[in-house]
Amino acid sequence: MDKSLEEKLMEQGKKAKAASRFLATASTTLKNEALLKTADALEAQGAEIVAANAIDLELGEKQGLTPALLERLALNESRIKDMAQGLREIAALPDPVGEVLGMWRRPNGLEVGRIRTPIGVIGIIYESRPNVTADAAGLCLKAGNAILLRGGEEALNSNRIIARIIAQSAKDCGIPEGAVQLVDSEDRQAAVYMMKMNDYLDVLIPRGGKGLKQAVLEHASVPVIMTGMGNCHVYVDALADLSKAQKIVFNAKVQRPSVCNAAETLLVNAKIAGDFLPAMIAELKGAGVEIRGCERSREIVPDILPAREEDWDEEYLDLILAVKVLDSVEDAIEHINCHGTGHSEAIISEDYSSVRRFISAVDAAAVYANASTRFTDGNVFGFGAEMGISTQKLHARGPMGLQELTTTKFIIYGDGQIR
Amino acid sequence: MDKSLEEKLMEQGKKAKAASRFLATASTTLKNEALLKTADALEAQGAEIVAANAIDLELGEKQGLTPALLERLALNESRIKDMAQGLREIAALPDPVGEVLGMWRRPNGLEVGRIRTPIGVIGIIYESRPNVTADAAGLCLKAGNAILLRGGEEALNSNRIIARIIAQSAKDCGIPEGAVQLVDSEDRQAAVYMMKMNDYLDVLIPRGGKGLKQAVLEHASVPVIMTGMGNCHVYVDALADLSKAQKIVFNAKVQRPSVCNAAETLLVNAKIAGDFLPAMIAELKGAGVEIRGCERSREIVPDILPAREEDWDEEYLDLILAVKVLDSVEDAIEHINCHGTGHSEAIISEDYSSVRRFISAVDAAAVYANASTRFTDGNVFGFGAEMGISTQKLHARGPMGLQELTTTKFIIYGDGQIR
Repeated sequence: MDKSLEEKLMEQGKKAKAASRFLATASTTLKNEALLKTADALEAQGAEIVAANAIDLELGEKQGLTPALLERLALNESRIKDMAQGLREIAALPDPVGEVLGMWRRPNGLEVGRIRTPIGVIGIIYESRPNVTADAAGLCLKAGNAILLRGGEEALNSNRIIARIIAQSAKDCGIPEGAVQLVDSEDRQAAVYMMKMNDYLDVLIPRGGKGLKQAVLEHASVPVIMTGMGNCHVYVDALADLSKAQKIVFNAKVQRPSVCNAAETLLVNAKIAGDFLPAMIAELKGAGVEIRGCERSREIVPDILPAREEDWDEEYLDLILAVKVLDSVEDAIEHINCHGTGHSEAIISEDYSSVRRFISAVDAAAVYANASTRFTDGNVFGFGAEMGISTQKLHARGPMGLQELTTTKFIIYGDGQIR
Repeated sequence: MDKSLEEKLMEQGKKAKAASRFLATASTTLKNEALLKTADALEAQGAEIVAANAIDLELGEKQGLTPALLERLALNESRIKDMAQGLREIAALPDPVGEVLGMWRRPNGLEVGRIRTPIGVIGIIYESRPNVTADAAGLCLKAGNAILLRGGEEALNSNRIIARIIAQSAKDCGIPEGAVQLVDSEDRQAAVYMMKMNDYLDVLIPRGGKGLKQAVLEHASVPVIMTGMGNCHVYVDALADLSKAQKIVFNAKVQRPSVCNAAETLLVNAKIAGDFLPAMIAELKGAGVEIRGCERSREIVPDILPAREEDWDEEYLDLILAVKVLDSVEDAIEHINCHGTGHSEAIISEDYSSVRRFISAVDAAAVYANASTRFTDGNVFGFGAEMGISTQKLHARGPMGLQELTTTKFIIYGDGQIR
């Protein structure tokens, strides 16, 4: 009876694999039914969810979580309604599974086609916000995948009841229990075991900070999609519309500094730095932003901290902004391709050639002309919910929606052809 | 001067990264020019290539390589012509880079699009056939990627001159030297170092057997695309056209048993096993195939070896075939999804529902109805050359052509939008 955590995980993996075989050929109707039933059940059991969440909040307060973290953790009736609504929206999206991406006849008469299929079993490691449990499970179900959820310890009671409601609703529709499972453990080792579940996990999606990324690099042998590392830049070009630039920089830094698509470094062309920086920096400082500037920026606005070399690589996730003055769009591209994390990068410019060059040469998941980096988000791009924002280049890059939770297979129709 | 192998590799990685920045925005015209120049140079320097290859062959003979391996290793004028022709064909293919995969306007006026871009730096580990050097470098160049080539020790002299000719031809066209580089070392540790080059390699493609796969699982922290593990099945259904079935099974097993898309297990529906197996097995035995059968198959054809449990998981790559009699298409699907490696799987049947069920439920890169598994190949599918056959589900699945050597990025055009 006293199974080790690793054994328990392997058993969950086995159940997930079996469920994924069922889900792979489940009809769209069935999957949507399960999503809608879950949405209703979450709303109907709202009081129980809030009660479970209250335990997490109490424990969190005792453990000294910051007010910001407690706020992310908190669930109330309206947030539960949002969760349910999210699932209904996923149900309304077209099913990616079965889409034929092309079919062509070869000279020997073979018909070769490519069709979208589920990936299989998806693992996700995430933190704090319990609504991720419902979003991630909903997206995975709709795309025909089983999911193994590893939420943060601080949200265990909330995640436990949400995952149970989803699994039960799915089961009521005839979907095997293994389809949605929570890794129910406070032991941090659980995440490390997941990184090695090659027999059961087809992909692992870690959502978290540097520590988690480091652990993944060290331990993971399963295929991984890294998400959400965002050292994002806004480059204000020589021919920028400075009033647009000021609005965009302010928004990219201040509107929600704790998220991965917030800007961390402002790059300014030397030709307009004298006109632009004083008012920009004054506005940012007024909003409580700490500025760390290069030598040239400090010649223009002396009253800011000096930037150290490390500042160019830092993802502050806070009201801090590094500022660098440079001479051309080429210098901006080089700085970004050297220091960026490949998340979201923006140029503010009215110069056609500068914009074209920036869009083409910057190596990132999302490259903007004249808009805030804050828009990199599955909902904003039109994908409904999102599973995370991939900052790697393989398989998925940028916000991951339903399509990114599928793979393809070739299907070949013949009449006895041999080689 | 006496640099360690690891230091040398990191330097190569750095040069490759720099070259990849150039290639990312290089014009199709320039890339094609380099490919065509390389093709001409390979032909012009055919004698030197053959001379270098002769050294490899001599060393290989001394080291006791099998005649089959020596045959794979050998280059002559005609094989060099084929290599050059392959590069000309790659030049003739459409450039995948810059293809816009969609662009849509969001309610706030943002235009969000998705565009195909190069991956960056690609590493490949491969064996024996030196023509892979030219194929892989050609595909990577065309898709705008730099490449780090790690061929087998047994082909070092051949690979060295081929890689030098490609790099020189590219350089003559203005492409930086780092674009095509050979890892010029006989030390097996070089492959392990490549698996950890996270700062420089965007993806590593290992082409090889179980040993390499094991090493990758153990050591790799860079993103990997596993290729070419093929435990392929042919399932002969109750309503199969038995003469088609016999031709296909024979072809899938015998035509080239050493390759990953050759069949390793024959599954036969019990309803036709008595009619089908005696003649089929006689024909296979006549071609020198060793048969290892399950109990039920041995009741029909007693004169075959008994299959052990391990046989269902074995990739023989040889004239050996496991045979199993089972009761339904569902049993065949379950056997394949349990024992297969997700490469190529075939059903032989005239039964509409059986075919439809098999195609939909079998979890593999290529699923065939009424054709030989031997067709899984980039050329056959119409992709020109191929970089390998992916047997994983992320990013690429099945034969990898130019498209699989790219990633995408989102490009977003705004007019000052903020969130």
